Amino acid sequence: MERPGDDIQALIALMARLPGLGPRSARRIVLHLIRKRTGQMTELAGLLDSVATHSRECLVCGNITDRDECAICTDPSRATGEICVVEDVADLWALERGHVFKGRYHVLGGTLSALDEIGPDELGIPALIDRVHRDGAAEVILALNATVEGQTTAHYIAEALEGSEVTVTGLAQGVPIGGELDYLDDGTITAALRARRRL
Amino acid sequence: MERPGDDIQALIALMARLPGLGPRSARRIVLHLIRKRTGQMTELAGLLDSVATHSRECLVCGNITDRDECAICTDPSRATGEICVVEDVADLWALERGHVFKGRYHVLGGTLSALDEIGPDELGIPALIDRVHRDGAAEVILALNATVEGQTTAHYIAEALEGSEVTVTGLAQGVPIGGELDYLDDGTITAALRARRRL
Ligand SMILES: [Zn+2]
Ligand SMILES: [Zn+2]
Repeated sequence: MERPGDDIQALIALMARLPGLGPRSARRIVLHLIRKRTGQMTELAGLLDSVATHSRECLVCGNITDRDECAICTDPSRATGEICVVEDVADLWALERGHVFKGRYHVLGGTLSALDEIGPDELGIPALIDRVHRDGAAEVILALNATVEGQTTAHYIAEALEGSEVTVTGLAQGVPIGGELDYLDDGTITAALRARRRL
Repeated sequence: MERPGDDIQALIALMARLPGLGPRSARRIVLHLIRKRTGQMTELAGLLDSVATHSRECLVCGNITDRDECAICTDPSRATGEICVVEDVADLWALERGHVFKGRYHVLGGTLSALDEIGPDELGIPALIDRVHRDGAAEVILALNATVEGQTTAHYIAEALEGSEVTVTGLAQGVPIGGELDYLDDGTITAALRARRRL
């Protein structure tokens, strides 16, 4: 092929659009895969296909699952009465890596943003409030990023739950100002969770 | 799923081993793909599978192709009598992006290295010398990295071709000392090729 063949070219172009990659890193990855052809590229193709086909959002919490409800929502031992609210599935994964939190989650999928016209409805906050009351949750942990948007969202949820029985907490100040949860080492996030404070 | 599901976990682990990626960037890419599920992940899976199944090395030059001989080796307009010797397919791609070189290539797949016990036979240098004589090539351009290993390899090939009719050239000194071709912008590599000098 004069230039990398059509499929290779298309593969590089597609990979170059993935977060954190560009044309150069995509070329290196594709060449690496072609060289290591013995299985690795086929395995990657198969896993991508399987995940693309089967993964979807848990109807209860927004976690990624291959069923209607995720393994955390259907695990009776995790009905601790605690609901940990996160912005993103990546944050849920980060908390799970800490092995400390034993309750359930609620994934918002973002933060309130007047600029981007993301209001409470777009984040499913009314559904979260309903769920908290329906489950009779004892504690809602707002594990949101220590950014302006994250904290604005936390305050909004805390106010919406005011007057109900539920205790609303946030992560301890172990989270650095402006820091994003998914960037923290697992120890820091675990310590911040352990020292969570009442809001 | 308690932690990312088995397939997602396996996908992240596989991606984390790709060059330039790690667990964190692999997680972000996989989450991005799951969110954009509408086609992008399936398309990526299909292209990986197709490339894995069809791509192999050109029997003549070592370029990546989906046939026995690549499109450059079978394109009669590229029988210019020039053979450009590169270390790697990534370098061939970089030169093709420059749209200046109109001849054919020879991919060594590495450089001479006493330490790694890579000698002329491992790089197929005897086959290159045969090809140069068989094709009656007029010019061999040694477009090797400006590293010690690259220049050692260039000198070895230049010496092996001494006494034959062929003109042996190298890239001009536009290539920075210690620089690797694949890291250069396309303009620099094109200028260095245009100003190539006789060795
Ligand atoms: Zn769930
Ligand atoms: Zn070829």
